[in-house]
Amino acid sequence: MKFTINRHVFLKHLSDVQRAITSKTTIPVLTGVKLALTTNELVLTGSDASISIEKIISSDIKENELDIIQTGSIVLPARFFGEIIRKLSGKDVQITLLENNKVEIVSDKSVFTINGIDAELYPIISNIDIEENQTISIASFLFKNVLSQTIFAASTSENRPILTGIHLVVENGQLITTATDSHRMSRRIILLPSISKDISYQCTIPAKSLVELSRILSDEEDVKMTVSDNKVLFTTENLYFYSRLVEGIYPDVSRLLKNQYETTFKVESSIFLQSVERASILSTEGKNDIVTLTLNKNSFISSESAEIGYVEEELDMLSFEGKPMKISFNPNYMKDALKAFQNQKIEINLIEEGKPFTLKLDEENDYFVQLITPIRTRN
Amino acid sequence: MKFTINRHVFLKHLSDVQRAITSKTTIPVLTGVKLALTTNELVLTGSDASISIEKIISSDIKENELDIIQTGSIVLPARFFGEIIRKLSGKDVQITLLENNKVEIVSDKSVFTINGIDAELYPIISNIDIEENQTISIASFLFKNVLSQTIFAASTSENRPILTGIHLVVENGQLITTATDSHRMSRRIILLPSISKDISYQCTIPAKSLVELSRILSDEEDVKMTVSDNKVLFTTENLYFYSRLVEGIYPDVSRLLKNQYETTFKVESSIFLQSVERASILSTEGKNDIVTLTLNKNSFISSESAEIGYVEEELDMLSFEGKPMKISFNPNYMKDALKAFQNQKIEINLIEEGKPFTLKLDEENDYFVQLITPIRTRN
Repeated sequence: MKFTINRHVFLKHLSDVQRAITSKTTIPVLTGVKLALTTNELVLTGSDASISIEKIISSDIKENELDIIQTGSIVLPARFFGEIIRKLSGKDVQITLLENNKVEIVSDKSVFTINGIDAELYPIISNIDIEENQTISIASFLFKNVLSQTIFAASTSENRPILTGIHLVVENGQLITTATDSHRMSRRIILLPSISKDISYQCTIPAKSLVELSRILSDEEDVKMTVSDNKVLFTTENLYFYSRLVEGIYPDVSRLLKNQYETTFKVESSIFLQSVERASILSTEGKNDIVTLTLNKNSFISSESAEIGYVEEELDMLSFEGKPMKISFNPNYMKDALKAFQNQKIEINLIEEGKPFTLKLDEENDYFVQLITPIRTRN
Repeated sequence: MKFTINRHVFLKHLSDVQRAITSKTTIPVLTGVKLALTTNELVLTGSDASISIEKIISSDIKENELDIIQTGSIVLPARFFGEIIRKLSGKDVQITLLENNKVEIVSDKSVFTINGIDAELYPIISNIDIEENQTISIASFLFKNVLSQTIFAASTSENRPILTGIHLVVENGQLITTATDSHRMSRRIILLPSISKDISYQCTIPAKSLVELSRILSDEEDVKMTVSDNKVLFTTENLYFYSRLVEGIYPDVSRLLKNQYETTFKVESSIFLQSVERASILSTEGKNDIVTLTLNKNSFISSESAEIGYVEEELDMLSFEGKPMKISFNPNYMKDALKAFQNQKIEINLIEEGKPFTLKLDEENDYFVQLITPIRTRN
């Protein structure tokens, strides 16, 4: 194996692939990045057994400045290799496989000789058959937006592994994305106009995988998603991103969403957020992290800590309808939910004190809805 | 005590004072910030017993928008109070001392009521008599620059407490600033043209204190320094910064600096730095963190790790004089030293293998000099 390549291009792809690589793995070869050079492309692979990322660098694309001198493959220690490539000073880098799995890296006046591992020892990243009729395509910027509005609501505890995943349902030309940790839930629906209504499937993908995918996808491209029995594959022009699926049946959260409410109010999400942030300065110190919202024509938010003090402030609502109510909630859930709406007018609907309440975008109805279970208090 | 003040002005001063306040103190009242309001100014005080910071906010300065309604004083829990002031939404904030040391904080629609501590319980920050003939004045930007070029070389270990300080000597119209951890040393000399040559004193100030002082000083102003037996006071127009001194006799490092060298070379500090950074990718993994410089007409830098591999690269020197030499050093010391020179031509002088070598600015001679003790190796 011997090639030269533009160092910045190489570093970008290497950094993407490194997202899948962890030093915590029990399989030593997975701490490495695999380089496989064929007659027309260099494929970089990183994996932690749960996520696998492949980036394809083609010699046909001029900017890559990929000059293939001799094909071959090797696995290199990912952390050091990445750091070496980052700190080299040349515009290009030349990589040559020597004897005994040693690899020479040359750029400008630097010559590194590092120990690699035989590529035969690297596990095979099994492929998924991409059947066109079970594949959806979606603009990356939109998909990343959907993920950022739902991922935070997934569980981080392994008590119920299914809740550590994000549930994706494709049906009737829609993508329904749901996350819940059983205390709160976020659901976002988007239309997929270019997709046949016959395509119908669902899966639960680890939230961690989707966080990494979001970081790699660039806004300009489309991403394709294909699901098999136990794996999902996301592809763009030069990316293959595999993730295992979370096994189990995802709970049916839609039954929690009602259409009848006792109380409804509208508010600017950013104004509500700032109030909750102030109230939570005191609440986070108390034993129970609780903020209380007293709803009426004149509503107010309050919180207290026996040690530090008390805060109360008026909430500027855009409108209020229904009967007065008082609810207490975990301010962290409320902050996450309000941040996901960014800076918009939202509608909040309550059924009764103690029952879950929903937040949704004023205009778009149920296309983006969040649900929070309040905390029961003594008073 | 009752006053209103521009929230942003207040927050700026409060943040500066908070730099002295730690939650780790064994004296509970020191976790608080003291507010003392007289008829014409508000004084904020924070202290960890080692450092004390006072900021003075005068009602005479229009931008402060300080409206003094009733004088008085109180100590408030610094962390929460700071966070509250930061997160309030109003342009101004009103602070009122109620009964039982409770304090009301009002801004826009928010009302906080927090528990304070009687200001009588706050320790007295004893004053230093500012004698004009023992006080020097120096431009803050220059003093911060001097500190940034020396502080890194101070010891972080309490084995020899004196070395955790920065040694300042005022004599012959010069300020000589020195830091050493016994493995390396950095010394910077500046001229103080406006200072009488009769002023002469020296002291050792904890490096930590000077780090905090550097963060508070703004580039535009001058800072005055006055030293007493066990304390130093830095003042600017609205700042009093006290620090304890480090007791003991600072070692005489000037005897380490020689004038005769066997080998001298010049190099761009940034080029040398990048080489050392690359070499240290491998060395930091090995048992001994060692980088080797082989000096000759054609010099090269090398390092190795039995596990990962080997690196060797040519060093681009500007000039070389004297006999060939080979020295090994801790790359972290070398990186710190080279960073302090920023991006300049430097001269490196060596006496013999195994003996400390010096780095200095090509033009300015001994006004900025650093010394590093090499590591003795078997070969």
